[in-house]
Amino acid sequence: MPRVDLAPDTVTGLWRVAHALADAARPATLRHFRAPGLDAQNKDAGGFDPVTAADREAETAIRAVLARLRPEDAILGEEQGRTPGQSGLTWVIDPIDGTRGYLSGTPTWGVLIALADAEGPILGIIDQPYIGERFWGGAGEAFVQGPMGKAPLATRAPRPLSEAILFSTFPEVGTADEGAAFARVAARARLTRYGCDCYAYALLAAGQIDLVIEAGLQTHDIMAPIAVIQAAGGVVTDWTGGPAHQGGRVIAAANPTIHAEALAVLNRDE
Amino acid sequence: MPRVDLAPDTVTGLWRVAHALADAARPATLRHFRAPGLDAQNKDAGGFDPVTAADREAETAIRAVLARLRPEDAILGEEQGRTPGQSGLTWVIDPIDGTRGYLSGTPTWGVLIALADAEGPILGIIDQPYIGERFWGGAGEAFVQGPMGKAPLATRAPRPLSEAILFSTFPEVGTADEGAAFARVAARARLTRYGCDCYAYALLAAGQIDLVIEAGLQTHDIMAPIAVIQAAGGVVTDWTGGPAHQGGRVIAAANPTIHAEALAVLNRDE
Repeated sequence: MPRVDLAPDTVTGLWRVAHALADAARPATLRHFRAPGLDAQNKDAGGFDPVTAADREAETAIRAVLARLRPEDAILGEEQGRTPGQSGLTWVIDPIDGTRGYLSGTPTWGVLIALADAEGPILGIIDQPYIGERFWGGAGEAFVQGPMGKAPLATRAPRPLSEAILFSTFPEVGTADEGAAFARVAARARLTRYGCDCYAYALLAAGQIDLVIEAGLQTHDIMAPIAVIQAAGGVVTDWTGGPAHQGGRVIAAANPTIHAEALAVLNRDE
Repeated sequence: MPRVDLAPDTVTGLWRVAHALADAARPATLRHFRAPGLDAQNKDAGGFDPVTAADREAETAIRAVLARLRPEDAILGEEQGRTPGQSGLTWVIDPIDGTRGYLSGTPTWGVLIALADAEGPILGIIDQPYIGERFWGGAGEAFVQGPMGKAPLATRAPRPLSEAILFSTFPEVGTADEGAAFARVAARARLTRYGCDCYAYALLAAGQIDLVIEAGLQTHDIMAPIAVIQAAGGVVTDWTGGPAHQGGRVIAAANPTIHAEALAVLNRDE
């Protein structure tokens, strides 16, 4: 399917909309963050997959801006599902990625906003409202703006896996087979860290770490990170090297060299 | 050994010094944070225990302030060791707690500053310079100041372990026996998260989580967190229920009820 063709003026306008969406989510997420009595409902009968009033209110705030500025686009939101559109463009929204981290008070959850067509993401934002830090990339630009000002995003130069920093949200990655594959890579990396949700993808785009490997993702978890990381020079695929924007098993890498090395270890049955 | 007797005026002055130390460490830690080319030296031949120029410069900046304001006190710093004093008081300093997180660009490392006598901590600070967030407690006060202003710190009310949030820095907690004990508690908790270093203790003091359990700590890792958590209403002990300020195996809990429940599970051989 051909990509939606966007004129430069249109891109500028779409970036303005994307930032307006992230701005709209900030008060909704911060109103409840660390607030006494914040309550979580569990969405997963077999585990703990919480959703809070903050998730719902942030998505509602984002949808209100889209209804005003881009009524022709489709929306795919984690909490409120799919709204059809006519433009061929879809806003893919995770109002709070890392709700478990949010509920714990950590500052590494984020608001994920992506604009996609059928081929994948066009642009994306990873926003961390508590720190006041925004990472964005796509359509030829990649920046972070936060406590230390605004700076271009660029992923790391190649280094061997034995010197690399690897992140994943939980040590229990996916199924038993997926977990074993992840553990093979982790055993060869210099340092493996857990617990960052989408913030790990932001760190990869910012040139701080080399790899993020996860399984069981949804499209709304990964669409914005793909846009930001690719615009910063990195590579994001599934574990076969194919497109990752539908979610599932994802490997994000700072450059093609370490992507190839880690992918080989992921798929080497030992 | 009797505690050093401190007049209220003296306490006010010591708090002023403690904040001045944290202020002095901020430029030194931020100068190198996420900077290209930041280099780590490995202190641990058998693993990866990095130290950076930021660790060294932050401790040097802190020691310079102490030499000016409190030359009579002893200093115990992670990087530069022990400096004797005559007052019976010791400043216990970890210039960057969570150097591995710092090297990865995460915002959950911290500068730890405690004032202690032979019985343990008198006051402590957990400072996160990138977020601009400071948690402090001891001698009758407990506060956080950060992006959302200044607020008192208070730990959570009791809830059963089955509804509790547990943190530890790494999933591999200590030795095999220590790891098994930790896993027993984690299996009973509602949610277990990793990767926060000292920030987990700050979240506990702020009423966000219920438990932090770790092993293999040094005195400079835990002295400041003990002061902050106790001042906020929490309990910090070793795994036998005794004092934890020498480091080793530590359990920090939001209240005596969940401390007792988790301690029993930690020590129940199954």
